Amino acid sequence: MSRPRITLLTDSGAGGEHVGALHAVLAAGCPDADRIELANDLAPGDVRWGAVVLARLAPLLPDAVHLAVVDPGVGTERLGVAVATAGGGALVGPDNGLLGLAADRMGAHAAVALPVPSDAPATFHGRDVFAPAAARLAAGVLVSDLGEPIDPAAIVRPALPAARTGAGRVEATAIGSDRFGNVTLLAGADELTDAGLAAGDGVTVSTAGGAFAAAVGRTFADVAPGEALVYLDSHGHLALAVNGGAAWDELGLCRDERVAVERR
Amino acid sequence: MSRPRITLLTDSGAGGEHVGALHAVLAAGCPDADRIELANDLAPGDVRWGAVVLARLAPLLPDAVHLAVVDPGVGTERLGVAVATAGGGALVGPDNGLLGLAADRMGAHAAVALPVPSDAPATFHGRDVFAPAAARLAAGVLVSDLGEPIDPAAIVRPALPAARTGAGRVEATAIGSDRFGNVTLLAGADELTDAGLAAGDGVTVSTAGGAFAAAVGRTFADVAPGEALVYLDSHGHLALAVNGGAAWDELGLCRDERVAVERR
Amino acid sequence: MSRPRITLLTDSGAGGEHVGALHAVLAAGCPDADRIELANDLAPGDVRWGAVVLARLAPLLPDAVHLAVVDPGVGTERLGVAVATAGGGALVGPDNGLLGLAADRMGAHAAVALPVPSDAPATFHGRDVFAPAAARLAAGVLVSDLGEPIDPAAIVRPALPAARTGAGRVEATAIGSDRFGNVTLLAGADELTDAGLAAGDGVTVSTAGGAFAAAVGRTFADVAPGEALVYLDSHGHLALAVNGGAAWDELGLCRDERVAVERR
Repeated sequence: MSRPRITLLTDSGAGGEHVGALHAVLAAGCPDADRIELANDLAPGDVRWGAVVLARLAPLLPDAVHLAVVDPGVGTERLGVAVATAGGGALVGPDNGLLGLAADRMGAHAAVALPVPSDAPATFHGRDVFAPAAARLAAGVLVSDLGEPIDPAAIVRPALPAARTGAGRVEATAIGSDRFGNVTLLAGADELTDAGLAAGDGVTVSTAGGAFAAAVGRTFADVAPGEALVYLDSHGHLALAVNGGAAWDELGLCRDERVAVERR
Repeated sequence: MSRPRITLLTDSGAGGEHVGALHAVLAAGCPDADRIELANDLAPGDVRWGAVVLARLAPLLPDAVHLAVVDPGVGTERLGVAVATAGGGALVGPDNGLLGLAADRMGAHAAVALPVPSDAPATFHGRDVFAPAAARLAAGVLVSDLGEPIDPAAIVRPALPAARTGAGRVEATAIGSDRFGNVTLLAGADELTDAGLAAGDGVTVSTAGGAFAAAVGRTFADVAPGEALVYLDSHGHLALAVNGGAAWDELGLCRDERVAVERR
Repeated sequence: MSRPRITLLTDSGAGGEHVGALHAVLAAGCPDADRIELANDLAPGDVRWGAVVLARLAPLLPDAVHLAVVDPGVGTERLGVAVATAGGGALVGPDNGLLGLAADRMGAHAAVALPVPSDAPATFHGRDVFAPAAARLAAGVLVSDLGEPIDPAAIVRPALPAARTGAGRVEATAIGSDRFGNVTLLAGADELTDAGLAAGDGVTVSTAGGAFAAAVGRTFADVAPGEALVYLDSHGHLALAVNGGAAWDELGLCRDERVAVERR
């Protein structure tokens, strides 16, 4: 049997000391585990983008323990939870919406509320509550042994604004971007089809900052360098890119801004 | 017996090529080791903050080999050292203050000066001196076999300005901050108690840039979004935060700046 | 026998979700492998600097599978390849120049073109083509079993401008810099010798932005804080640094800019 797996997803910053603390607790608690960083560069406190990224990546490792810590409400009454998923894995983190999309996608069949040690500082449950729980799960402890059962259907889902479509038009929320400035919209192939848009179409992308010409395509080089592209990204989300550039910056987007893509 | 552990703490930047070189040398020298990144995003050359972070994190893994490379004086007469610690682990790095706090906290019972290969370039002892030594220690070689013995009590300690307290007042040095902009002060629970300050107190935080209203609390959400918090962080240091913001930037702090916290 | 090794080198950003996706695919495909991040902070699309960094670091682990993904032409007709190297390892990535220098340095004795699954999205062959191939190689599959053979001598080499030397003068291209702002020039010890320059010489460094006094030296502290240094870096490249500063920024360099170093 292969070694247990623990993934990490945080807003603590790549190479940051808090990520290091999580690694140290996990290494101490489950020395055999393979620790896998899924993402640590999430914007501080961006629970919703964290939820999207976790739901994109965690299903690649269905039997892993997924430790997720984007926790601006640490030390408040929000619960900490562990959720058993259908593939034999688990999700561990704050019950603030961060785990909800992944739980839906992977199938949640049990969940518990994690107890907080009475002497734990109030600002780093990642280290003191979630990582110890993740290490125990990786070492073979069952989710049901970690706390009081709660209804897995009651795990908080993130509030993600729906897309709207019309003839030749998709309007959706810009939920996040990657290192290249490629923008993820909360829409996908269905919305593109509903709108009757397809590769090769010329479109106008409208944001709060202005209107930009773009083309629907498959990959970055389908448009000239510096030109804007609308495409389905590698996770199936509708996305915006600039070939050789950073769409998020060049379009002047703000988080959660509505973006309209409309046939020219 | 579990696999050996080697931690890394550097100012070479998360995902940077020099961190990669250290990993490669460690993997080649001790293939079985679990390599654990404690922090790589330290500001270039910031030996003192590196010393604080190392002393915070290394004790989580007392039996690990801790490789620390913040080495602005590389290639000069400063020694490179390996220090045997009480928990069966070791500290390896430049003797410029970086290891001193961790050595004190973990207990140093032996130390050696590491020889520098005569053909080693003068700018990357991390790769050519420290990582090879760390790999050998992880593979079972003793500290005493790596070089000429030196007095462990003579390991350089970082010069950390002391806090001062008065009635209702703590003055301390801002030594560093994390990815969230939370500011670590060189003071702790004792100074807060000496000053007679406690959770719920309203305080004024004075910096070179101005005076700010804040409250003493336990966690970020104890103050309203955008408001400033004074608290004991998860390592027991006195700290400053802005709920949902970045205190370091919003208070306009400079490294090593003195900060006064005073009852309003 | 020690566990297989897979290294990663990308422009996806330290702690970024795309690096996480690569890790997840590698962990799923070869659970026993030691995954080693060589560098993930390369500037987006900077194939040539990626090629230099890969050629610097990959030879440290000659038997590893080196997965390299700087792939601005993803989804176009550029090939994806796997290259068997003399030390028993392999290079895997886009055939856009990224692998060429490392292939030369390590010795390429066989290569194949990697097939692209017909249902793969067009924007992330790192996840869908290269990482699966790397995992299979690490698990023991031969390069020759991964695709149609191609001539290893035909692997694309990056176009790297040559240095020019004269009496007391080296002119070379600034190809990249590290986290400290130290600048790598496409020249080395031979060019320095040709120019008759040696440690201790005073030189003028001329860039598009101006002329700066510097000294040839061995290490940063050979010049006063804030002063500029010309040296052979730890990989043997001619390099520029500012002691305690960031040469790239302070000299106002642009990527691929020509720099002249001339005896004062």
